[in-house]
Amino acid sequence: MFSKILIGLAAYITLTGSASCSRGPKPTTDPTPPPGPHPPSTVHIAANVEALVDSALTDPYAYEKLGELCDEIGHRLTGSIGMERAIAWSQLSMYQAGFDSVWTEPVTVPLWTRGQEWASCTAPVEFDLVMTGLGLSDGTGPDGVEAEVMVVASYDELDNRAAEAAGKIVLFDMPWEGYGSVARYRTGGASAAARHGAVAVLVRSATGVSLGAAHTGMMHYADDAPRIPAAALTVEDAGRLRRLAEKGLKPRVHMYMEAANLGDITSYNVIGDIRGRELPEEIVLVAGHLDSWDVGTGAQDDGAGVVLALAAARILLKQDLRPRRTVRVVHFTAEEYGALGGKAYLEAHRSELDRHVLAIESDSGAYAPRGFSVSADSTVVEALALAAAPLARVAPVEWSVHKGGSGADIGAIVREGVPGVGHRVDTTHYFDVHHSGADTFEKVDPDYLARNVAAIAGLIYTVAESPARPGSLPAGPYSSGGHR
Amino acid sequence: MFSKILIGLAAYITLTGSASCSRGPKPTTDPTPPPGPHPPSTVHIAANVEALVDSALTDPYAYEKLGELCDEIGHRLTGSIGMERAIAWSQLSMYQAGFDSVWTEPVTVPLWTRGQEWASCTAPVEFDLVMTGLGLSDGTGPDGVEAEVMVVASYDELDNRAAEAAGKIVLFDMPWEGYGSVARYRTGGASAAARHGAVAVLVRSATGVSLGAAHTGMMHYADDAPRIPAAALTVEDAGRLRRLAEKGLKPRVHMYMEAANLGDITSYNVIGDIRGRELPEEIVLVAGHLDSWDVGTGAQDDGAGVVLALAAARILLKQDLRPRRTVRVVHFTAEEYGALGGKAYLEAHRSELDRHVLAIESDSGAYAPRGFSVSADSTVVEALALAAAPLARVAPVEWSVHKGGSGADIGAIVREGVPGVGHRVDTTHYFDVHHSGADTFEKVDPDYLARNVAAIAGLIYTVAESPARPGSLPAGPYSSGGHR
Repeated sequence: MFSKILIGLAAYITLTGSASCSRGPKPTTDPTPPPGPHPPSTVHIAANVEALVDSALTDPYAYEKLGELCDEIGHRLTGSIGMERAIAWSQLSMYQAGFDSVWTEPVTVPLWTRGQEWASCTAPVEFDLVMTGLGLSDGTGPDGVEAEVMVVASYDELDNRAAEAAGKIVLFDMPWEGYGSVARYRTGGASAAARHGAVAVLVRSATGVSLGAAHTGMMHYADDAPRIPAAALTVEDAGRLRRLAEKGLKPRVHMYMEAANLGDITSYNVIGDIRGRELPEEIVLVAGHLDSWDVGTGAQDDGAGVVLALAAARILLKQDLRPRRTVRVVHFTAEEYGALGGKAYLEAHRSELDRHVLAIESDSGAYAPRGFSVSADSTVVEALALAAAPLARVAPVEWSVHKGGSGADIGAIVREGVPGVGHRVDTTHYFDVHHSGADTFEKVDPDYLARNVAAIAGLIYTVAESPARPGSLPAGPYSSGGHR
Repeated sequence: MFSKILIGLAAYITLTGSASCSRGPKPTTDPTPPPGPHPPSTVHIAANVEALVDSALTDPYAYEKLGELCDEIGHRLTGSIGMERAIAWSQLSMYQAGFDSVWTEPVTVPLWTRGQEWASCTAPVEFDLVMTGLGLSDGTGPDGVEAEVMVVASYDELDNRAAEAAGKIVLFDMPWEGYGSVARYRTGGASAAARHGAVAVLVRSATGVSLGAAHTGMMHYADDAPRIPAAALTVEDAGRLRRLAEKGLKPRVHMYMEAANLGDITSYNVIGDIRGRELPEEIVLVAGHLDSWDVGTGAQDDGAGVVLALAAARILLKQDLRPRRTVRVVHFTAEEYGALGGKAYLEAHRSELDRHVLAIESDSGAYAPRGFSVSADSTVVEALALAAAPLARVAPVEWSVHKGGSGADIGAIVREGVPGVGHRVDTTHYFDVHHSGADTFEKVDPDYLARNVAAIAGLIYTVAESPARPGSLPAGPYSSGGHR
């Protein structure tokens, strides 16, 4: 094992040893070590990664911190008391872990409150619905909204039957074909229905598996449509209303939401640095988002990412490793309201983006680790694949590093040219719990959590310690625009 | 296929051709047909079973009826409007299917109402709990109950820490080791805790899989203990309270339940007969229970059993088959309150139990069919295994007929000597939805439902049509006592 790690790292460091755009020779895949001594940096990085991984795999810290965050603080809706407590917890945790500097940066965020909410079917049969208002939706007013339900399976169907929508509650109920297939109706369904005169909108929960819980999430009002209340129903209730409608039984729903948009307030990103030994101005950023929805306790989304970033950085300190470059942990606020924390970070740090060597985000839960996806030039992708190769041992199966997306929070700086990395896990069951009351602490497996700490710690240490930046980066100003 | 069916039926009819206690020769397992003509009855039964199965597998009736019951009527809590509607629906359905006689029989049942209910953790952190009161529990009174939570994992732990219980809300939270491992605390936990001075009891939901729904079920007050309110929490919330308690954080809960026991009322079993062609006084009874809990729509528990019994009998009529004996469908009431409908059936029919050739119950959902379990003498078990052998083709895998339990409703008459059969299915996911808001129509697979109709129809037809009763039955009065 150790020999293999040395080979991978030697190749990585060869690749990253040049700051120019050209890259080194294709790395050997021969499993036997090349003759001659390894470069000193290869040897010490390999040994330190091996020790970091071993330490992380048996360290209870991340799981204990996740228990504090989920059980003792609970949900962290942006602007809520829970989020305020979490911001304090995050700073305290970084200080206690031994970070050199810890601070907050202000982010202007909307203050949205849910209040009481309920819904029931009033005809052709009376029954209570399990409903959760969508984030940033307006409320219904004190009398609620009561109307016949028009059930559609797509925007196309809504357009084709547009004449029927006036005065109705439009319900979007469609087969699950992945998160985007449903979430786009959650985001845009209200305005689409309102343009045709609908009085409220309901959407089936964005999950492929349901055992009776509604899944919330952000919605967005377009400027050109009336603002109507929007909520999610369980898969079960949405299906029942659809079937009643298909039988011609004209279901009616009475829904009540006290939801209110109360203007803007200030929330905070929490940032902590472990100052680099030789190149403190160069930053390896690792992040998760501290906010969550107000159902469940945001364990996989994104308590896991928060503690992974924290614990991965801390394990360096625990192993007495202060890498060449600065390791920066960012706990973003207001990701669920449109990655507002990430956008604020870009504005606050726009002049120093070229100091960001790499940004890594974890926001898909702490399931079985699968590797990383890299949003950067191919040379960076290949360099990081080599850097991460020794970490494959933490993955039960299917480890890979490939070109792909990074993360919602770091997206803003990645779009400006910072190489971005998305922490990849097995997301088979992520949307079962996502944005619902089922996203709770016991859904996180402590062994998988530890494996993910090891993977992230190994990657950030390797990148922060290596003689040069991964792959090739342009020397000039960062370009703006889309993904590189 | 057809040859194999003939062999199995020939063996079954040989076995059941004698009314004495001795049974026939061991059936052949040779796959080639024995020489010579088959008995005429074997031939016509085999052909008719083949046709029944073919018809049932493509008949949409059962699924349509389940849709009516679950979607258009909904939950059927004993004493509720839904149950009243379901009793009418059941009678109408039997008439429309062409049953010869349809009637109801009164059953005295408790009238329990849930009313409003909620719970929240008030310390060390405030959060709402997902709680569902247990059936037949008393309420909390208008102020609710607010107390520290004492978390125990077993009756042994409660006894060992009995001195701590006074004034507390006792929460039973234990690992899932099958339904009984948790359900026994749901049933008896309140009185056990009350004996030590607890003011209310909570129990984790009786499920191995949870996505945020609470599972209700019946509880029972012992005569020797104070009556304290009892409710179920989600697995998620029970675990969070347990973890907070384990950290020494002394969680407190405020719970409010308007639940009330309002005395007895009359409900009804619905009974329909297809009169036997030659032996109308001999009855093959097939049953499910019409009542459900008031969360979800009781699709698997036991809407499935209700429509399986109905559709299995109806498919005989659809195929113009009027068997030798009477086929009786019983839709029991108040199974969830302790199989009260089944007990009332015993009292109403005690003098004619010996006319009951067989009783079959389906109350494990309509998952993939697995066969039948038989609560009767071994000769009956063996005879029914042969009778059911041709039906194995409806099961994707793992078909078997063996000695075992029958059903909660028919248990009363089975304990008095009527041979009982339990309809077996793959119950891997039954308790995921059982007694929760997730037990809804779309959880029932229409293909599996049709396969189960075929299996039950084939069995009841074979038994009702065969020259003699299955196996050997004592000629004298039925014995009382436990399972035979």
